[in-house]
Amino acid sequence: MKSILTIGEILVEIMATDRGDGFLEPVTLIGPFPSGAPAIFIDQAARFGQPAAMVGCVGDDDFGRVNLNRLRRDGVDVSGIRIDPEAVTGSAFVRYRPDGSRAFVYNIKQSASGRIALDAASRAVLARSDHLHVMGTALFSPQIVAIVLEAAEAIKARGGTISFDPNLRPEMLRLPGLREACEVLFRRCDLYLPSGEELTLFTRAQDEREAVAEILAGGVRAVIHKKGAEGAAYFDAGSSLTQPGFAVAEVDPTGAGDCFGATFVSCWLRGLPPAEGLAFAAAAGALAVTRQGPMEGAATRAEIDAFLAARSRSPAP
Amino acid sequence: MKSILTIGEILVEIMATDRGDGFLEPVTLIGPFPSGAPAIFIDQAARFGQPAAMVGCVGDDDFGRVNLNRLRRDGVDVSGIRIDPEAVTGSAFVRYRPDGSRAFVYNIKQSASGRIALDAASRAVLARSDHLHVMGTALFSPQIVAIVLEAAEAIKARGGTISFDPNLRPEMLRLPGLREACEVLFRRCDLYLPSGEELTLFTRAQDEREAVAEILAGGVRAVIHKKGAEGAAYFDAGSSLTQPGFAVAEVDPTGAGDCFGATFVSCWLRGLPPAEGLAFAAAAGALAVTRQGPMEGAATRAEIDAFLAARSRSPAP
Repeated sequence: MKSILTIGEILVEIMATDRGDGFLEPVTLIGPFPSGAPAIFIDQAARFGQPAAMVGCVGDDDFGRVNLNRLRRDGVDVSGIRIDPEAVTGSAFVRYRPDGSRAFVYNIKQSASGRIALDAASRAVLARSDHLHVMGTALFSPQIVAIVLEAAEAIKARGGTISFDPNLRPEMLRLPGLREACEVLFRRCDLYLPSGEELTLFTRAQDEREAVAEILAGGVRAVIHKKGAEGAAYFDAGSSLTQPGFAVAEVDPTGAGDCFGATFVSCWLRGLPPAEGLAFAAAAGALAVTRQGPMEGAATRAEIDAFLAARSRSPAP
Repeated sequence: MKSILTIGEILVEIMATDRGDGFLEPVTLIGPFPSGAPAIFIDQAARFGQPAAMVGCVGDDDFGRVNLNRLRRDGVDVSGIRIDPEAVTGSAFVRYRPDGSRAFVYNIKQSASGRIALDAASRAVLARSDHLHVMGTALFSPQIVAIVLEAAEAIKARGGTISFDPNLRPEMLRLPGLREACEVLFRRCDLYLPSGEELTLFTRAQDEREAVAEILAGGVRAVIHKKGAEGAAYFDAGSSLTQPGFAVAEVDPTGAGDCFGATFVSCWLRGLPPAEGLAFAAAAGALAVTRQGPMEGAATRAEIDAFLAARSRSPAP
């Protein structure tokens, strides 16, 4: 089976238990949960059974260990994750506001995740990977942009493939070099996995049909347009498909898009028909929202199979 | 009244609500509480009524605001606290282990507190301060050591005074330049406020009486030896005093030594007799342990007066 590599941030998430506007007074919190969009993605790929590896950096602290332990347990090759004794593992405090929006306090750029390097161990991981998945969130510094672009070219040069999920918070587009790096990856990727309005982020066309045509004309092999609880749409040169979302009781939506993406990319690398990949991915996304914690809902292949089997036996509503 | 300046780390503290060995799985936490030993010290000095200012650095985030709001509310001059938009406010996760020891995950060196600078605003604060209090915890980088030593010489050059609390975690003594900086401050300070075994950290003598004689012979005007719940001892060239601790229900000991020190230094700067300063300081230390959160127990002059009045009315046990 083809192996997936991702490069990027490894964080812990600390969640406020009640809603409110930020962190200006002591509140009850739960954490640390393993997190970071690339880490969630690669954990889901491994749980789905795909050979999976990550290049990243954590501190020599419990927040790094909580991530390494989880990724190792789930089968991710962590030999490319450096432990930097001078740095602190990244973190994200999250609190839902009364209106459903989220307040954050991030420590990412100045954390260990800002010290990702292509050292001997991570070059070895890169050399044995067939596919690179890039999250736009990972591209927060010129150094990491350079590493990701070097890895992308190395993978492409030996016939490998790339998937790209812009996964951008709007304020990130102001980071130096980020938009340019995203545009490079947007042109070089085989699979493009935008969410919602990200579909038209790098296109001249501003409606879905025209934007998809423009993206495919630019050389991308398939566009998987993620639409949260509504499901997803798939487009390639010859076909278009839609996959409705599965209705589940939502506990915590964080990480669902990453789990969807990891499962679809894994299926695509196995040569499964896109309709099958979409169904597996939608099941993984649905399972992800049923658990509190960004990586807690990453499901195994067996859990996804059981979920789909139960749904196919259910009468149509 | 004479004004006190301190320089150093500003943190939030996040506390686990149950005991256990570190942060390897999600646990219930409470925070953010304003924290950082120098910040606790200066907050207590201001609450006791002393003109007080701090030089430090926070990020442009809720963790910085929770500290700035608290220090401002309590009357600390925060004009020397820089807000660095590229940095994240420091943090300390704390969990008590079953044996009473504490597990930490710190973000200090790479946080905003690592970016303290003597800019125009902090030089202006320094120029109008009469006394500098130094916490050993603040001396975690060569840059901050240089700033603190420059401030110490500036204060001394115009007839001001210095107090020094080594307040060192053992692993800190390995930091480059820290021991040397501590030894400079140990020789330059007017008041030396070690806790427990720190008394002999920089002396040849290893018992209390000889160590005190050696310190006073070196030019320190008074030694205040802090002994936690047991109280404290005071020594100068002509006198020695002991102050038993006040018995209170301990909720959270973090910050008690800082509150003790701030109150004693304030009394000393007002020219109060040492016995009176010790009593005020012991009351502040006792009140500090009755509240959860490192800075939450910093008491006002009125609260300390009321505490002492109630104790003096109590019959002896």
